Amino acid sequence: MKNLIIASTSTIYGSGFLEYLLPELREHFKSIKSLLFIPYARPGGISHEAYTEAVAKSMQSLSIAVHGIHEFDDPEKAIEKAEAIFVGGGNTFVLLKALQQKKLIDPLRIVLDKGTPYLGTSAGSNIVAPNVKTTNDMPIVHPTSLDALNLIPFNINAHYLDPIKNSTHKGETRPTRIKEFHVYNSETVLGLREGSWISVKGEKMLLKGPFSAVVFRRNMNPFEIETDSDLGILLT
Amino acid sequence: MKNLIIASTSTIYGSGFLEYLLPELREHFKSIKSLLFIPYARPGGISHEAYTEAVAKSMQSLSIAVHGIHEFDDPEKAIEKAEAIFVGGGNTFVLLKALQQKKLIDPLRIVLDKGTPYLGTSAGSNIVAPNVKTTNDMPIVHPTSLDALNLIPFNINAHYLDPIKNSTHKGETRPTRIKEFHVYNSETVLGLREGSWISVKGEKMLLKGPFSAVVFRRNMNPFEIETDSDLGILLT
Repeated sequence: MKNLIIASTSTIYGSGFLEYLLPELREHFKSIKSLLFIPYARPGGISHEAYTEAVAKSMQSLSIAVHGIHEFDDPEKAIEKAEAIFVGGGNTFVLLKALQQKKLIDPLRIVLDKGTPYLGTSAGSNIVAPNVKTTNDMPIVHPTSLDALNLIPFNINAHYLDPIKNSTHKGETRPTRIKEFHVYNSETVLGLREGSWISVKGEKMLLKGPFSAVVFRRNMNPFEIETDSDLGILLT
Repeated sequence: MKNLIIASTSTIYGSGFLEYLLPELREHFKSIKSLLFIPYARPGGISHEAYTEAVAKSMQSLSIAVHGIHEFDDPEKAIEKAEAIFVGGGNTFVLLKALQQKKLIDPLRIVLDKGTPYLGTSAGSNIVAPNVKTTNDMPIVHPTSLDALNLIPFNINAHYLDPIKNSTHKGETRPTRIKEFHVYNSETVLGLREGSWISVKGEKMLLKGPFSAVVFRRNMNPFEIETDSDLGILLT
């Protein structure tokens, strides 16, 4: 039974790393003593060691020990044996390419499908979807494919931003980019605002956090979905 | 002798399509009667016909006839025979993938290297660089590679935006993204603000337009370069 938290961001403005999620994580990780952290997305090019250290610090208040996957000789076995797994944010292309090169896509999908508790933030949330073609990140490396774990039936747009009214900038807005995505792809996209997350328990998917989210479906106008809504509606 | 205009954007705020560039284009295209337009980037998913129509309208005041490359049975020959070429903006991944599928990368590089006058805007500017890994676009399709025409010795970041002061958003700023690019890549990146362009005549490269640009070099702090500067400095 899938048991996932899929968060737009690790950090909200004016708050520490993962701080806003701690009440939810206390419940999500309640029987967990150790967490496997996958630091491959490397925000700002940070080292695996430094990134893992930041996660370990944030998990202290939950009394959870954190180990980075880079500490293990056999990362596939580390995934199979993990009590719980967290994939942090950074660059989605860098993350996906590392998982592909180390042949960890299938092992990760298998354990998450079986119920290993998972936390994804930002890039770590994008990879739970059918593909990462709705990332906001810069394609600084080139993965062999943009297909991802496909554990939920829709794509994520993390750090979702509403268009800025009266902007003079001519670069595309987020809704314009997602509309272009739907010229070539059929997956529904959920625009997840910073501070919101999706809770997946088996086939039950709920939108959580303080904000509504925006649903983009092919050939339809985008619409808002309220927090605490059942996201099963996105399946049909 | 290369003869390129590489513009951040086709359109600036409060002005019509290509309007701000018309004085420059009058000179750039002064002996040109017909222009080959490559509409493959499809901004907003627009059809090749509609996009070409918009370009034709904008070129009326220069008395230049515009033909879309999709009108030709043999697009490679159309490139070889073109008096001048314009590649418009839209989605850089969509543009690059179309050029790859139609095997037009090499033909385009060859004629531009020989001196066919060229205009690129946004995505059409990104492709002139060594690679498109500093695009802002969403990876809605997956090209086989992100290598591009390599006609200039640095990458472009089109529609360059300065970080918004006191922003509460936790998504990456443009400088953060380009800094991450330099963890994995060595190419210098020019952050080109909307309204600015690069004029390339042979090996002479000048920054033009109302704004300074931002130079990002690996392992260096970014710095501003004034308009009318010789971009040869970026070569060394």
